[in-house]
Amino acid sequence: MNEATTLKAAVVGASGYSGEELVRLLLGHPHVELTAVTSRQYAGQTLAEVFPRFGNRSSLKFTEPNPSTLAEAAEVIFLALPHGVAAEFAKPLVEAGRTVIDLSADFRLNDAAVYEEFYGNPHPAPGLLEQSVYGMPELHRAAITDAKLIAAPGCYPTSILLPIVPLLRGGLIKPTGIIADSQSGVSGAGRKTDIPFLYAECNESLRPYGVPKHRHLSEMEQELSVAANTQVRMQFTPHLVPVTRGILSTLYLAPSESFMTEPEEAALAEKITSCYAAAYGDEPFIRLLPASALPDTKHVTGSNYLDLAWRLDRRTGRLIVMSAIDNLVKGASGQAVQCLNLAQGWDETTGLI
Amino acid sequence: MNEATTLKAAVVGASGYSGEELVRLLLGHPHVELTAVTSRQYAGQTLAEVFPRFGNRSSLKFTEPNPSTLAEAAEVIFLALPHGVAAEFAKPLVEAGRTVIDLSADFRLNDAAVYEEFYGNPHPAPGLLEQSVYGMPELHRAAITDAKLIAAPGCYPTSILLPIVPLLRGGLIKPTGIIADSQSGVSGAGRKTDIPFLYAECNESLRPYGVPKHRHLSEMEQELSVAANTQVRMQFTPHLVPVTRGILSTLYLAPSESFMTEPEEAALAEKITSCYAAAYGDEPFIRLLPASALPDTKHVTGSNYLDLAWRLDRRTGRLIVMSAIDNLVKGASGQAVQCLNLAQGWDETTGLI
Amino acid sequence: MNEATTLKAAVVGASGYSGEELVRLLLGHPHVELTAVTSRQYAGQTLAEVFPRFGNRSSLKFTEPNPSTLAEAAEVIFLALPHGVAAEFAKPLVEAGRTVIDLSADFRLNDAAVYEEFYGNPHPAPGLLEQSVYGMPELHRAAITDAKLIAAPGCYPTSILLPIVPLLRGGLIKPTGIIADSQSGVSGAGRKTDIPFLYAECNESLRPYGVPKHRHLSEMEQELSVAANTQVRMQFTPHLVPVTRGILSTLYLAPSESFMTEPEEAALAEKITSCYAAAYGDEPFIRLLPASALPDTKHVTGSNYLDLAWRLDRRTGRLIVMSAIDNLVKGASGQAVQCLNLAQGWDETTGLI
Amino acid sequence: MNEATTLKAAVVGASGYSGEELVRLLLGHPHVELTAVTSRQYAGQTLAEVFPRFGNRSSLKFTEPNPSTLAEAAEVIFLALPHGVAAEFAKPLVEAGRTVIDLSADFRLNDAAVYEEFYGNPHPAPGLLEQSVYGMPELHRAAITDAKLIAAPGCYPTSILLPIVPLLRGGLIKPTGIIADSQSGVSGAGRKTDIPFLYAECNESLRPYGVPKHRHLSEMEQELSVAANTQVRMQFTPHLVPVTRGILSTLYLAPSESFMTEPEEAALAEKITSCYAAAYGDEPFIRLLPASALPDTKHVTGSNYLDLAWRLDRRTGRLIVMSAIDNLVKGASGQAVQCLNLAQGWDETTGLI
Repeated sequence: MNEATTLKAAVVGASGYSGEELVRLLLGHPHVELTAVTSRQYAGQTLAEVFPRFGNRSSLKFTEPNPSTLAEAAEVIFLALPHGVAAEFAKPLVEAGRTVIDLSADFRLNDAAVYEEFYGNPHPAPGLLEQSVYGMPELHRAAITDAKLIAAPGCYPTSILLPIVPLLRGGLIKPTGIIADSQSGVSGAGRKTDIPFLYAECNESLRPYGVPKHRHLSEMEQELSVAANTQVRMQFTPHLVPVTRGILSTLYLAPSESFMTEPEEAALAEKITSCYAAAYGDEPFIRLLPASALPDTKHVTGSNYLDLAWRLDRRTGRLIVMSAIDNLVKGASGQAVQCLNLAQGWDETTGLI
Repeated sequence: MNEATTLKAAVVGASGYSGEELVRLLLGHPHVELTAVTSRQYAGQTLAEVFPRFGNRSSLKFTEPNPSTLAEAAEVIFLALPHGVAAEFAKPLVEAGRTVIDLSADFRLNDAAVYEEFYGNPHPAPGLLEQSVYGMPELHRAAITDAKLIAAPGCYPTSILLPIVPLLRGGLIKPTGIIADSQSGVSGAGRKTDIPFLYAECNESLRPYGVPKHRHLSEMEQELSVAANTQVRMQFTPHLVPVTRGILSTLYLAPSESFMTEPEEAALAEKITSCYAAAYGDEPFIRLLPASALPDTKHVTGSNYLDLAWRLDRRTGRLIVMSAIDNLVKGASGQAVQCLNLAQGWDETTGLI
Repeated sequence: MNEATTLKAAVVGASGYSGEELVRLLLGHPHVELTAVTSRQYAGQTLAEVFPRFGNRSSLKFTEPNPSTLAEAAEVIFLALPHGVAAEFAKPLVEAGRTVIDLSADFRLNDAAVYEEFYGNPHPAPGLLEQSVYGMPELHRAAITDAKLIAAPGCYPTSILLPIVPLLRGGLIKPTGIIADSQSGVSGAGRKTDIPFLYAECNESLRPYGVPKHRHLSEMEQELSVAANTQVRMQFTPHLVPVTRGILSTLYLAPSESFMTEPEEAALAEKITSCYAAAYGDEPFIRLLPASALPDTKHVTGSNYLDLAWRLDRRTGRLIVMSAIDNLVKGASGQAVQCLNLAQGWDETTGLI
Repeated sequence: MNEATTLKAAVVGASGYSGEELVRLLLGHPHVELTAVTSRQYAGQTLAEVFPRFGNRSSLKFTEPNPSTLAEAAEVIFLALPHGVAAEFAKPLVEAGRTVIDLSADFRLNDAAVYEEFYGNPHPAPGLLEQSVYGMPELHRAAITDAKLIAAPGCYPTSILLPIVPLLRGGLIKPTGIIADSQSGVSGAGRKTDIPFLYAECNESLRPYGVPKHRHLSEMEQELSVAANTQVRMQFTPHLVPVTRGILSTLYLAPSESFMTEPEEAALAEKITSCYAAAYGDEPFIRLLPASALPDTKHVTGSNYLDLAWRLDRRTGRLIVMSAIDNLVKGASGQAVQCLNLAQGWDETTGLI
């Protein structure tokens, strides 16, 4: 695409945290013109009235969401809607020839039956599943390039899949016994007015939730199974911790080969280093931390980076991999914009660094 | 002991977070008179000058720490000192016939060699190890009753051992493959003026540390090995999260029997329920949460409770146990006072509820 | 009253933050038996199910609020209800001869017209205003002793009136030009599920609100006017800041006499010191900080103390007084229990230290 | 200046919070090449090792600070050093013909005697005071354009002067009785390892400090006096609150004319509106909020904006103005970069939006 041209984009459901973050990124994107933002709740108000942080930066007003109006207003439409609702918009927009980047779970799963198992309803638009692409550029770059319907991955899956998939693809770890223990900031729950997400409930609080069968397991097991070329079952425990943004995931993995001596450990470490370097050495948004460092969500807040470190533990025979992302950027809106860049043939980092 | 009598107690190193918390608990204890608080840094200042929260409650002044003065001032001496330093006080005080409750790591390990492996120095008083008792009342009540040298457990070990030991003792889980993933508030690092513990460094930050060989592994593996009657090696990952107080531990365990069907799962669940009920049903400070609940550190802050919940995951064959404590109370000073109550023959909850 | 007797008490609206805090204090009160807690939302559930922190401490269940049932269940009833609703309970309970301690605004104002001006509705029970007492023990001890209807003061007013009233009574400051600038923790907003009180909205946020005519002005101006014996108008700006508990008030006052020289300043300082010492030197819950110290809400959290410090500024001719309280304790439930102690003839600190 | 040319810039003292923020802004500035960052503590380490957030974005290493090396490395040098130390670098660099933008207090005051009164030492380079310019573009745009030595204002003064100066210049408020009550995030204290700034000390803490004579009074009174054309004395109370970034200032001002009736109030409101519109209507970084809104630091975090709102209070005759900034951006490094843009003839928002 000619970079001189400006692409018209819309955000549906722009009043949630992911939607707001999309607006921030798109307003700063040099090749994009944000032409519509929708919100049932705020229709008629300006962006700046609802989000004063955008004051002086846009005079856009929220409108009621309407597929045909959206199809006219924009060439690319981002859906920041609850699952189930997203599909209602995706269908007419895709049919109208628009590119849809959906941040909900509606098009992440290849199998409508798995969707029903984890989300409790029949899939709202199974006919579209075949053409939807899982929008994780580091794993599916080629497919995203041509996609018209991109399913931006969940925040937890982003923090977990990126560290694990190269190891599985390379045969360095066993596909069994995978455990992911994650901590997430409260913005991950969305702008939902439920008691558990009030300040005075979250401050000074550490708590697990959704144990043991969180919905994000479905897309994680799907992607891990593809990488391992066998059915993978994993353990996943999310925790809510008092930060606004950030996911820290600690992954417990079993290397395929044992390493009971120091030389064996060194040899295995060498293989892991090479594996990650081959997979991510040139990736603009994955930072393989130096040997002495461990990730900290504070270093990725507001950015599209995933920071990654790992340790071998000879005492237990395990590989521990740790990752940090901003759940609203690499875990949602930033990754969606990265997909947009890719789909449009722009430099993948445009508007993201 | 006659409850009418008041016991004289001292706190050495009362200016750290554990020391301050001991002062809080002892000032409110009906059978204790706090007769001395020491601090090299604050000697000469009143408690209330250093800790305004104690204003109107005590006119005590900090003094320089000195074993012989302490032996005169108090019958029971709490040591809230760094490891290595604690032993220097414990030795003369025990020799002088005083009861010593040490909050450092100096007397938690039975084996001086393990101490040296994990703490990097030869043990400072190996001769005392034989008479020291690991001060976890729920596991060692009888021994604590008669002890003159009590080693209050570490904060992480408290949150991890209490959930696991009954399962190991009862043979319900395998002694292999144990993983503990923990999150701790920043007070756990002590009142240390290092950059990583500044507000602006910890706020909005989630980070692992001490991976993979944290010092607390030593006492955890010691106690687990006793419970399992075999050498146990475990995986432990601590994380620093932005709360002042609290430890949330999520434990990944392998049940001894498989449970691939619903009836098998129900049978196993029944056994776990019984096991915990037998072990902790009458414990005043362990709360076995109802089936629908998960622990939250917010509910134990400021108290000596440990809250515990668990889930079986038939998809993975694992048992997930989750616990929450206040690291400064049940994880340090509260447990130390619980030991005092026990050693003095008082109701174990005195001054703690 | 005979201390051996146990008083039956109930909390109506026990599921809000003030109600929960009342439950905490009453469960620990040696002369009180908590016999009923009500909540429309949680009726039928146990206290421990709704507030796990009370696990192992009470087997009480929430019930539907009903005046006649309450009058049977308890001799003293605490109302932790929204204004307007509180009066509906106060009326029948007072008529039934019960003692009512109301934490709402319904009975704080002597003048029903002022109530209507600030709260927007006609007063719901103007006939009771004459017998209600403003429940601030340090200012109205005698009246509280005999009261059957006690209006516990607002949180901001507590932090502002206690520092100012003695100065006004003593004629040390002018009754004009009083400014109170306050910061409050988010629990002050109650357990309300509105977007502005979500964690991700309050964290890393500092904001004024209710400028310039906050409702609490009404009771503050009433009490200041009585103290000054003239109509007082004051300026008040509340701010919401990211802590759960605490109010810090900074008060800008104009001394009645000028102090342009050092000796004049010293003379005035001496008078202020004496004034506060006379007013509060023996008060158990007011701490006049040493000259070098300034208040910090952290030192009063969880307690019924108000910490107070002041500075004269010769450059501007002003007196700056600063106070810190826990908005839920001295600013609400603790002060209510202090009133109970006083009304029952118990030591005023019972159950509060 | 030709925008095609790239300007070489250096940051001295780049390891503090302001220095780090300068690095962030300069790395993203399209016309600047960052050629040197200095830090005694971290010399030899890469930017990314010390600040992992800059990983993948720069391969620069910290060097020892040295004026002659710096003069060779860069055309513009930012000094993010303690006061007193900054002057030692400014002198040789200005003499070498470099442009110096100093974030310390060393060159903010016109009068060396005032510097000595407030900072406790004789001024380190009084000869440079005449040529230094107070770097607040909205107030001193013309002077900054030609300046070789720019003193970036303090964080509090930025949040306080910008709202007040237009009102004083326009004669709308009296120059007497000005009160500024401010709350600041902890990063304002710098990356200093003192106990009061530890996480566990700041979290859940609200506290005033530096009452009544904070150092920033000196530059505020200097600028207000110029604006009012008479000597101004003001009251200023800073508070430390648990956020990382942000300053919220609430200003109590006395309008020059009284407004006791509604029409008088409306007339005065109209004048204030016009005054601010004239002063700031076209300013890119000052946002005059709509009538219904109040500022919230959350909306300016990470940006160079100052958000401003005001209210007239007919009950007290006062004007309340409230402002919010990010202390590290508009209050320090962002404003410094804004000055750079201005001094270089670039669009003032370059690299800042």
